[in-house]
Formats: sequence, C-alpha cells, structure tokens
Amino acid sequence: MSLERKLIEIIKKSGKQPNSFIGDDCAVVDCAAGNYLFCLDNFTEGTHYSEEYFNAEDIGWKSLAVNLSDIAAHAGTPLYILIGLSLSKSIPDKQRWVAEFYRGLNDCAEKFGGAQVIGGDISASCGLTSISVTVIGKASSAENFLRSNAKPGMKICVSGKFGNSASFLAGNHYDANNIRYHLRPQPRIREAQLLASCNQQAALMDASDGLVASLVEIAEQSSVNLAIDSHLVPRDPHVLLSEALYGGEDYELVACLESVPENFTCIGEVRDQVETPTVIDIQTGQNLTKQKIFSHF
Amino acid sequence: MSLERKLIEIIKKSGKQPNSFIGDDCAVVDCAAGNYLFCLDNFTEGTHYSEEYFNAEDIGWKSLAVNLSDIAAHAGTPLYILIGLSLSKSIPDKQRWVAEFYRGLNDCAEKFGGAQVIGGDISASCGLTSISVTVIGKASSAENFLRSNAKPGMKICVSGKFGNSASFLAGNHYDANNIRYHLRPQPRIREAQLLASCNQQAALMDASDGLVASLVEIAEQSSVNLAIDSHLVPRDPHVLLSEALYGGEDYELVACLESVPENFTCIGEVRDQVETPTVIDIQTGQNLTKQKIFSHF
Repeated sequence: MSLERKLIEIIKKSGKQPNSFIGDDCAVVDCAAGNYLFCLDNFTEGTHYSEEYFNAEDIGWKSLAVNLSDIAAHAGTPLYILIGLSLSKSIPDKQRWVAEFYRGLNDCAEKFGGAQVIGGDISASCGLTSISVTVIGKASSAENFLRSNAKPGMKICVSGKFGNSASFLAGNHYDANNIRYHLRPQPRIREAQLLASCNQQAALMDASDGLVASLVEIAEQSSVNLAIDSHLVPRDPHVLLSEALYGGEDYELVACLESVPENFTCIGEVRDQVETPTVIDIQTGQNLTKQKIFSHF
Repeated sequence: MSLERKLIEIIKKSGKQPNSFIGDDCAVVDCAAGNYLFCLDNFTEGTHYSEEYFNAEDIGWKSLAVNLSDIAAHAGTPLYILIGLSLSKSIPDKQRWVAEFYRGLNDCAEKFGGAQVIGGDISASCGLTSISVTVIGKASSAENFLRSNAKPGMKICVSGKFGNSASFLAGNHYDANNIRYHLRPQPRIREAQLLASCNQQAALMDASDGLVASLVEIAEQSSVNLAIDSHLVPRDPHVLLSEALYGGEDYELVACLESVPENFTCIGEVRDQVETPTVIDIQTGQNLTKQKIFSHF
C-alpha cells in the first residue's frame, strides 16, 4: 500500500462516523436551501506556528479553531470541513503525525459545533508543512451580524480575555492561559449563538487580528465612533495592556449590540461619528485607530 | 497600506464582477436546495509545479483547473472558489505575482463554467509557495455519476488525449500539446455536461492519477472487468504508450456508459467480473491492474 493510501486510511478512520467521501475527488452533499458561510484559513509552519511549541495534535486543533472562529463571527453553525495538508518531507513518522493531527482536529470539531470532515487533499511538501482549512457553515441570516451594524447607543462587549496569545509569543510559555489561548484557542460558537438568541442584530467580529483592529474595522464599516475604557478590557494580571489591545490571535468575539449576553464583558459604547470613524480610549482620550496592527504577512 | 491589504485590493479588482466578500472572514451565500459538490486540491511548489516552467499566470490557471476537473468528474457545474495562498518570501515582486496568479485563475474560471472567487486567505510562507483551492459546485444528482456505476455491456470512453503531461515531465518541453496539457489543462466541464445529457447514468472519473489508475478504480468500485484496446487510447505520435497509460496529470474524463458522446473516443467495454476486478489490455492479454501508478507523495 502506498504512503498516500495509508495516510488516507488513517484519515478515514480518524472521525467518529465512517466517511465515504474521504479518498474520493469530491464530496456530494444534499443541502437544504438557506444562507451558507464559506471560509478558508491558511495555517503554515514558520508563519502561523512553530513545531518548537506545537505538536501535531495542537496543529490540527488550531488549524480548525481559527476557521470555526470565523463561523462564530457570523453567529453560524459549522457543518463541513475540507483539509488541504501539504506535509513536510522532514517529518520522520508521517503516519503518526497525520493520526495526531486529525485527533486534534476532530476533537476541536466535536467540541465546537460538530462539523464533519468531508474531504481534502494530502500531498508531500519539499519545504515546510502547509495547511489550509475550509469550513462551510449555516447562517441564520445574511445581514443580522455584519460589521456594518453598529449604531450609536449600542454597547460594545467582548467574550473571554485578551492578550494571552501575545504574551505567549513575547516569551511567557509557561502560563496555563497563555498556552491555552495560543495553542488551543476555543472558538466562540456557543457564545455567538447565545448572543444571537438575545440580539436580533449586532455588529460582530472575532478579534483574530487584535482587539483594536476589530474595533477599527467595525467603526469604519459602520461609520461610527467607538468609545472604550481600556481598563475594562478583560486580561490576566501578567498580560500587558498593549498585548490585550493589539496582540492578535485572541479568537474572542467583539460585538456592538443592545443586550449584553451572559459571560460577555461590556467595555464601552457606540457613539455618533465625529469627522472620521475612530476608536477612543476614554481612560486616556487617546485615538486608538492609528496604532500598529497585527499582521501575518 | 500594508502589503497584505495591497494584495487583497489586487485580488478584489482581479475578477470581472465586484466582490464584497473578499477581505471579509466569511462569504455568506444564499443557496438553493440541492446536491452540492465540495472539493479541494493542493498545488504546491516543488511537488506539483516548478517555477522553472510555470509562470504565476500558469500557476493560477492550473491550481484551479485541477479542481474544476473534479467537478467535471461528477458532471457538475462549478459555482464558488476559495483560494488559500501561502506566498514564498523569496518572490521579489509579490504584487505583480498575485495579479498574474489571479489573472490566470480568473481566466480559467471564466472559460470553464464561470465560477466566482468568494474568499480565501493570503499569508507569507517562510519556505516554498503553497496553494490550496476549494471549489463548490452543483450536481444534477448524487448518484448518477459514481465510480461504482459501471455495468457489463457498457462502453469505455475517454475525452481528449493521454500522456502529453507525462511526456512534458520526461523532458519534452517544446511540443505545443505537452505544454498545454501540463501547464494549461482544460477541465472537461462542458464535455461532462454533454455526456450527462445523453446518459442518465455512467461511471465517471477524471484521469488525474493516470488512465489505468482510473480504470482500476472504476473496476474495483463497480466489481467488473474492464477490457480496453491500448491501441485505441488517443495519444500524439511522440507520446509513449506507457506515458498514455500510466502518466498521470491528464485532466481527461474516463467513463463507462451506454451512449458515447461526440468528441469522446471508445477504447473498450465493461465485462462481467472474473475472480477479482481487473483491467485487461486485449492487445496483449496483459492484466494492467498491477502496474505502477502515478502518485504526488
């Protein structure tokens, strides 16, 4: 049996349910009518992760989690997953690596919405390992959770805490929250659905590029000013304020809405636009729009 | 403006239609009920292509074409495309490269079914360039074009010609057909739809892993014997028989069906299974099942 065939057999057996599509060129799925979400994220060795800190199970988990966070940002339900895995020739035991990768990925899928792997491609890479994950989800509505939905008077709220991933990247590899946030982010699928159940409309995003980057995006898309109190941004004592505001890779939700759901923290309010859309810290009066923003490029 | 933002602006402007989803985390699409096809293929520097022969436009074209060929293999219509592009830091002019890549990709999309790019991800690669393309298509039926549909008495037929891509890889880089087959494969979307219009059922595949590999797969999935006359396999005079039979990367259709459509070549017939499923060359009496099969691993 070729290595490719052996790896496909491992992938076939990795899920809880048998899956007849894996090994075929296409999955054929009977879909009901409705609004569907399509998202894709790269997860590349050297750019998005280092094998110094991530084992194959962590890589599987996080490569999916960052996509599920995009589905959460539309208050959607994840349904189907396709995985493009370009596996470095330098990995000594490829069968073990692939089994562990899919264990982490399937764990994450099961814990956060129950989407199923329906296909993908596996091939050798002459360089580093490169992963690309596509997730298809169902949205309750096309327009209820756009970034352009913020209106003056709405509250600004966030899920979870900020800056742990940046703190990990800055060298603190031993704090349990830093490890969890950076290696095993918890996509906020349930929190987003809870939010949607008590708010018919909201401006909603995830903070994958940093909290302030998300706020700036909402301010610009909605043509409003956002006033936050930076002291209210939830963070661990060891996390710097700058890490919490600008760090990136915190897969938390940022929302502007009427009714703050349980487990969310209110950090400010939406105001009328004065001149241009801005994000202001009412603690310092500082305009946060122009700060350096996290980038994977 | 950051490089990432500049590249996203280039991608936004590359299509014929304006696309509001590009730059967002998710595309939200209102889908009618029905059978949908989901496929993903990797296209990786060093494994699937070399920059020695492929320019960025060729890379864009072929990375999509190999996926569209999977849609054709289910007689489907391509609808939506997502692109994961992990761009090598060694590319000197990234804006130009991305513009050319998308020009090739959009050209291919337009010529073969008119699918639209609705999303993706672009990030830097510390190693080689790595591409992953997801295509979503519509299938007329979930079961009419499965590999398991071959029945004794059916004809075996193929589109196009075989072995030019293998001939290119073997060193013949100057023949126009070799160049076209290897750098600019023509996915058989229209031919598959023509085939479906005159056959309610067929066993259908593309020959991306080689003609014999596809025939073996159909024989095994359908529990039949396939008898082909290797002299009938369409190939250019300079192409070796072994290249035509085993070469791989010929994105042609292989079908077992009742009514051979226009522009297809009949190369044999489906027979009852004797002992195990096999593929036999009636020219030599040779069992082709056990030959070396093309692999990207």
